[in-house]
Amino acid sequence: MRLKVEKQILSANDAVAMQNRARLDATQVLAINVMASPGAGKTSLILATADRLPHGIRMAVIEGDLASRIDADLIATRGIPVTQINTGGTCHLDAPMIRAALDQLPLENVHLLFIENVGNLVCPAEFELGAHLAIVVASTPEGHDKPYKYPGMFARADAVILNKADLLDVLGFDMAYFERGLRMVNPAAPIFALSCRTGQGVEDWLAWLLRRLNHDEDSTAASA
Amino acid sequence: MRLKVEKQILSANDAVAMQNRARLDATQVLAINVMASPGAGKTSLILATADRLPHGIRMAVIEGDLASRIDADLIATRGIPVTQINTGGTCHLDAPMIRAALDQLPLENVHLLFIENVGNLVCPAEFELGAHLAIVVASTPEGHDKPYKYPGMFARADAVILNKADLLDVLGFDMAYFERGLRMVNPAAPIFALSCRTGQGVEDWLAWLLRRLNHDEDSTAASA
Repeated sequence: MRLKVEKQILSANDAVAMQNRARLDATQVLAINVMASPGAGKTSLILATADRLPHGIRMAVIEGDLASRIDADLIATRGIPVTQINTGGTCHLDAPMIRAALDQLPLENVHLLFIENVGNLVCPAEFELGAHLAIVVASTPEGHDKPYKYPGMFARADAVILNKADLLDVLGFDMAYFERGLRMVNPAAPIFALSCRTGQGVEDWLAWLLRRLNHDEDSTAASA
Repeated sequence: MRLKVEKQILSANDAVAMQNRARLDATQVLAINVMASPGAGKTSLILATADRLPHGIRMAVIEGDLASRIDADLIATRGIPVTQINTGGTCHLDAPMIRAALDQLPLENVHLLFIENVGNLVCPAEFELGAHLAIVVASTPEGHDKPYKYPGMFARADAVILNKADLLDVLGFDMAYFERGLRMVNPAAPIFALSCRTGQGVEDWLAWLLRRLNHDEDSTAASA
């Protein structure tokens, strides 16, 4: 009984996710679903990226939180268009929430949309939003065993950010063990070890992101 | 429709949780539901506690994980009775899982039972397990804003551990802001700032825990 109901809900979510994707494609916006544990540095990554975007590339943000608008306010102070979703306790974003949020954003003036999911390394992986890319932000203090313990999330990632890399040595983080765990569930996703605080490594992530942005624009142009 | 189904499931969970509690009380075991984000240090806290328990107080552990038995193996190497629950992707422990795990443990020889929940700062708060106490392990690298962002979890806590306190200064963690956020949803829970790595502050947590253990034994004796 319960499984059946859940399945219907998931299918409805996927249908809306497809509509969201079509809408993003129509306005040539590359959307990125940013997932992570609480405090891994999702907002910090978005801001570090914003600081380094080439002139002329405009971004927007959808902020997902159970409660509060701390992160949305922080992003708004940089002059970045942002809309807040407070899930009221729900442990993940879903496609209908994104549909409503897209109505609030000036998509025609935006190239890049970050969707910051609820801080949770489990549930968000199960809900398609319509984004083009999914990234997982891990962080060194969480430990090098996370891909083994949360395989579903890491399997979904198109790229894995390892934030707080400035603490790698002090924490004794074993990068080879981390990568081995990731490869068990995800053979291809690149790992970007970086620190949003010091800025080290952010350029490599940005270069990858910009390649995806240009690639997607080429694809859209080619199919238009 | 969906709400109705969920409500039935929650009530069934609560009924089993009450049975678990009765079983723990009958064998005079104090059970603690340990909840946290991934990597905050749940297993480290359990091990740091085990290392400092007074002679004659025996503990056991139920380990909840989506996948893997990394933590259970670590605990077993210390000679502590442990049983592993792999939820197979489910984002929280529930009371029926605990009922099955209790069958695997020598409860008559145990005073203290730690139940390590799935690493998730959202969903576990919604499922009663039958434990006597719920604690939340926060950690300094997650940032001082977590009580504002995850109020449901912090509201549930009988005590809040702030782990990795040896990194307080290097991370610029604002303890007053953290505590103010906690007090908005939880007026009474004590905060134990400690470091499982260095051992600083662990004694205060242990003293609180032992008071609860003695108090509960007194209550059981009085009502017997």
